[in-house]
Amino acid sequence: MHKVPVGVLGASGYAGRELCGLIARHPLLDLAFASANEQRGQRMRIGAEEVTYIAAEDAPLNKAEVVFTALPHGASAKWVGNARGSGARVVDLSSDFRPGVVENNSKMQAPYGLTELMRAKIPGAKIVANPGCYPTAILLAIAPLLREGMALPGATINVSAASGVTGAGYSARPDLLFAEVAEDFRAYAVGNQHRHIAEMQAVAKELGGNDNDILFTPHLLPVARGILATITIPVKEHTDDPSTLWRDCYHGEPFIEIADQPPSLRDVVRRNVVRISVSKAANVRQPTLIIISAIDNLVKGAAGQAVQNANVLLDLGEQTGLPA
Amino acid sequence: MHKVPVGVLGASGYAGRELCGLIARHPLLDLAFASANEQRGQRMRIGAEEVTYIAAEDAPLNKAEVVFTALPHGASAKWVGNARGSGARVVDLSSDFRPGVVENNSKMQAPYGLTELMRAKIPGAKIVANPGCYPTAILLAIAPLLREGMALPGATINVSAASGVTGAGYSARPDLLFAEVAEDFRAYAVGNQHRHIAEMQAVAKELGGNDNDILFTPHLLPVARGILATITIPVKEHTDDPSTLWRDCYHGEPFIEIADQPPSLRDVVRRNVVRISVSKAANVRQPTLIIISAIDNLVKGAAGQAVQNANVLLDLGEQTGLPA
Amino acid sequence: MHKVPVGVLGASGYAGRELCGLIARHPLLDLAFASANEQRGQRMRIGAEEVTYIAAEDAPLNKAEVVFTALPHGASAKWVGNARGSGARVVDLSSDFRPGVVENNSKMQAPYGLTELMRAKIPGAKIVANPGCYPTAILLAIAPLLREGMALPGATINVSAASGVTGAGYSARPDLLFAEVAEDFRAYAVGNQHRHIAEMQAVAKELGGNDNDILFTPHLLPVARGILATITIPVKEHTDDPSTLWRDCYHGEPFIEIADQPPSLRDVVRRNVVRISVSKAANVRQPTLIIISAIDNLVKGAAGQAVQNANVLLDLGEQTGLPA
Amino acid sequence: MHKVPVGVLGASGYAGRELCGLIARHPLLDLAFASANEQRGQRMRIGAEEVTYIAAEDAPLNKAEVVFTALPHGASAKWVGNARGSGARVVDLSSDFRPGVVENNSKMQAPYGLTELMRAKIPGAKIVANPGCYPTAILLAIAPLLREGMALPGATINVSAASGVTGAGYSARPDLLFAEVAEDFRAYAVGNQHRHIAEMQAVAKELGGNDNDILFTPHLLPVARGILATITIPVKEHTDDPSTLWRDCYHGEPFIEIADQPPSLRDVVRRNVVRISVSKAANVRQPTLIIISAIDNLVKGAAGQAVQNANVLLDLGEQTGLPA
Repeated sequence: MHKVPVGVLGASGYAGRELCGLIARHPLLDLAFASANEQRGQRMRIGAEEVTYIAAEDAPLNKAEVVFTALPHGASAKWVGNARGSGARVVDLSSDFRPGVVENNSKMQAPYGLTELMRAKIPGAKIVANPGCYPTAILLAIAPLLREGMALPGATINVSAASGVTGAGYSARPDLLFAEVAEDFRAYAVGNQHRHIAEMQAVAKELGGNDNDILFTPHLLPVARGILATITIPVKEHTDDPSTLWRDCYHGEPFIEIADQPPSLRDVVRRNVVRISVSKAANVRQPTLIIISAIDNLVKGAAGQAVQNANVLLDLGEQTGLPA
Repeated sequence: MHKVPVGVLGASGYAGRELCGLIARHPLLDLAFASANEQRGQRMRIGAEEVTYIAAEDAPLNKAEVVFTALPHGASAKWVGNARGSGARVVDLSSDFRPGVVENNSKMQAPYGLTELMRAKIPGAKIVANPGCYPTAILLAIAPLLREGMALPGATINVSAASGVTGAGYSARPDLLFAEVAEDFRAYAVGNQHRHIAEMQAVAKELGGNDNDILFTPHLLPVARGILATITIPVKEHTDDPSTLWRDCYHGEPFIEIADQPPSLRDVVRRNVVRISVSKAANVRQPTLIIISAIDNLVKGAAGQAVQNANVLLDLGEQTGLPA
Repeated sequence: MHKVPVGVLGASGYAGRELCGLIARHPLLDLAFASANEQRGQRMRIGAEEVTYIAAEDAPLNKAEVVFTALPHGASAKWVGNARGSGARVVDLSSDFRPGVVENNSKMQAPYGLTELMRAKIPGAKIVANPGCYPTAILLAIAPLLREGMALPGATINVSAASGVTGAGYSARPDLLFAEVAEDFRAYAVGNQHRHIAEMQAVAKELGGNDNDILFTPHLLPVARGILATITIPVKEHTDDPSTLWRDCYHGEPFIEIADQPPSLRDVVRRNVVRISVSKAANVRQPTLIIISAIDNLVKGAAGQAVQNANVLLDLGEQTGLPA
Repeated sequence: MHKVPVGVLGASGYAGRELCGLIARHPLLDLAFASANEQRGQRMRIGAEEVTYIAAEDAPLNKAEVVFTALPHGASAKWVGNARGSGARVVDLSSDFRPGVVENNSKMQAPYGLTELMRAKIPGAKIVANPGCYPTAILLAIAPLLREGMALPGATINVSAASGVTGAGYSARPDLLFAEVAEDFRAYAVGNQHRHIAEMQAVAKELGGNDNDILFTPHLLPVARGILATITIPVKEHTDDPSTLWRDCYHGEPFIEIADQPPSLRDVVRRNVVRISVSKAANVRQPTLIIISAIDNLVKGAAGQAVQNANVLLDLGEQTGLPA
């Protein structure tokens, strides 16, 4: 069977390597090249195979129908342009084309690739802006409620989330050393300062809702991969089974699981799914929902969703090659 | 120098062992006995020394001036009574005498041993109800604000907290096995169902405040020890430096640190301190404070605070023998 | 395509669950039943699917062409007999039919399923004795040298090996709790006392060699899965590239990798492979080889090799459905 | 009481920080300065106190009676010279003055500070070469046997050892990131290539023995601190209780524990001790001892032993200020 040639720019980071692994196991995609400037010439093992990194400048962009850009934020836009110039369509894993990004003054238009919510806009796109990991976990969790207008008007949506260290990228920072992270747990970007806030606020507004701000506190977990978001939302009133709305909204979605029990990281790690539970808060007077959402930050939160978007772009079947 | 003889009932659990270690290093306390029914006859190493467990029934209660009860919730009240009958004063680490506990129909009165806030009531007490680990981290963090009436009247105080596995006790549950906890992270008692809610609500009410409910979601961390609580509180209005209130309120307290940067577990592990940061939330319209509070659940959250209370009971100097 | 129905007895332990997962993803096998007496009625999730445990006594043994027995050592033999009585062939993951096992006075004959070395005996077998995890890692590593007669006659083969905690099984032992295992490392069965010694000595003798004893010290690692064995063997003399023998011996084997660099656990985890490096010792006068061997204890060391053996038994293609 | 002023050069690494912490808690030492060139001006917290790093060039060397040098191997010798020029005595934690070091062409003489074995040479020394972490664990474990001549003449002493990641120093290497080390285990310097080999061979020869080479394979553990060495030694013949020799040899030593059970890391972490067990190998014909030795690489393996040596140098009482 004919396989579609695709390339990866920025293939030595955690997301880039995950992407190469997914492409290698994909029945309809073929990895035409994988770039990593600092590691060029080095070999990367993917399962039982090996790939040799090349420099981005040496990448035969015109041989790929889709180019995945997994480059640092800010550095990606230029290479997205180069790939477009070679005729390739692009799935960009950086934040450069995402909504709410201040730097995003590009003339290039890119739909936001939160596939389940934005599916219709993707097939015709030239560039897809692949969502951030936290926004994927959080927006998929709150979208049904926002669309339905259930949140208390003007109330703040409170999000406390925690991510494994691969979320910080493959960078040799002393604070990410094993002996610094193990047996520790810490919040960061405290005070609603994280770069993903604008992305979430912009998309949440687009999804509807009742003018609700998002207050987001991320934490660093001593695990390699996974994001768990604990979201509390004041609502107008309680319904009998609050999860019904989510089950209806996501009925038939292969990559969204509505669970009776709160999900944990091990429910989702190495899978291209988001797993969500919805509970009513007891012992408080303000009716409030507690939504717990879990993803693998490198799969559904990055490389898996990128392949999902490429599947839609190329009409290969949205689930093809993805670990559910 | 004369040392005060003390005993520990329930000395084989994590809190009990920590307590024995603190007593062994305490310059003015002497460990008269350590009970552990199932381990009786076995030896426990404390640093370079060893202690032999005896059965609780064989414990010479009358030889101890203070008995620490680190027994399971529900099983403790009876032994507190026995120790009282032998003339000992008691620091009870279970929930049996804590405020808000439904089962607490005892005729015995016990002040709540959140030492920094309740110091005046302890010296004359016969029994001290040592606080729970989560309540210690959370109540010390929000007390200044509650007393000052800063919280938005009627608003919900949102707490997302995470604890190391020793918080679940030394019990051979399959869900606490290494291979189940490592690389995982999960919420539990979701829906504001944790047994500590009532304790926190009752004490918060006593501290003042503006009729604020607490919504509390605990999580299990893949670390051995430590609690980090991330607390968001809507306030009436912002002040220039919100941490000033905390610095003033806790000025001179040896075991409370108000930090410029958000604390992490490794700042507090093996120390009898709570470390607290206070930040203003940006990018939301409702003025909101984000308070991060960290303790070692076995030290300030259990055994350390118990020794601190015993120090006050016995007038030994509140800081004596405690690792700050 | 017709799938072969198979069953798993003892499906709630770590090896049993891994086995069910492999069967669920196998293109030519169909999971007819999964037993777990204590968990009967409970559901187990395998990827996106679920299986309900039944009691072993309720298992329709006659509906399975192959029954995998992942029961405790000693308890397995009876159920192997039951399965045989129902006409099924059996792959037994316990030690009950392995060479060197004292209890093994059974009249039932079972070839040892170290597939790469014993491949010829498996197709006609009624029962296959699936090897232990440590013996798999160690025997595959030393077999080429033993067969070639390279070891110094009479010399001791020294093995220091370390295993992740799933090797100890899914049992709620206090010493396997997260807080006991994390940040620790310890040897066990010290003094050449491990139950796998006899199995290794018996098979090593069969493989040839120069009358070499094995001295084996296992350790418990704070990781979930994986075994790394560090083996030192005095040899008669050094050759230029000692790994040549291994490359020749295992040429074309899909599940054996001879590596230039010492393997680490992450090279093999979740894969049905053994990865082996061979180095010469510098700075010692006695010519000595250092062989490092790594496997995933639950895959190549248990469930994966069991499926590999079933593939051979059923002539399905040895690699089918296995993650290399 | 008068405290002795001491200084630390290289105080930002793991050993340097441990050293500052020990000095801060030492009743008879006073930290006069702590240098760290890259971190100069930054503050380091030690328990409840803080220290500000200065540049080594700004260090008032003449104000310290003892200077501890915890600088990189190769960079230390120069600063040892500078400190000597200022009249200070030096405890050097690098390898620059250790026996067997090729680069060690210095005219400065330094006894090897394996305190329990070399105690007599230290009081008069100007410089003490503090031993490496692995040599400390291994040499203390085998010294009694070497001195007694128990080892089989000419036999190889086989050592498989594992260290926590702080042993690699506080360096931002990608291979030491949390996500690379967690759930992994690997050997390094395979082939008897580690820099500590020469140090161990040289000291072992000095201790006596029967011309035994050491074959040493170190491994990297996913823990922060601790070393466990598993040593196998062919002996001439077995005695009834082989540990008797060790108990006799180390009788009265406060920092050496001979244990009935094999030690594990948690027995020794944060303590200035080595804990050793001795067992006979069953099931092999060559009489062989298995010695397991555990230390905290940062305490007895570095900073603790350095303070122990300073205590001897300054005649402060060898145990003063050290956590046994």
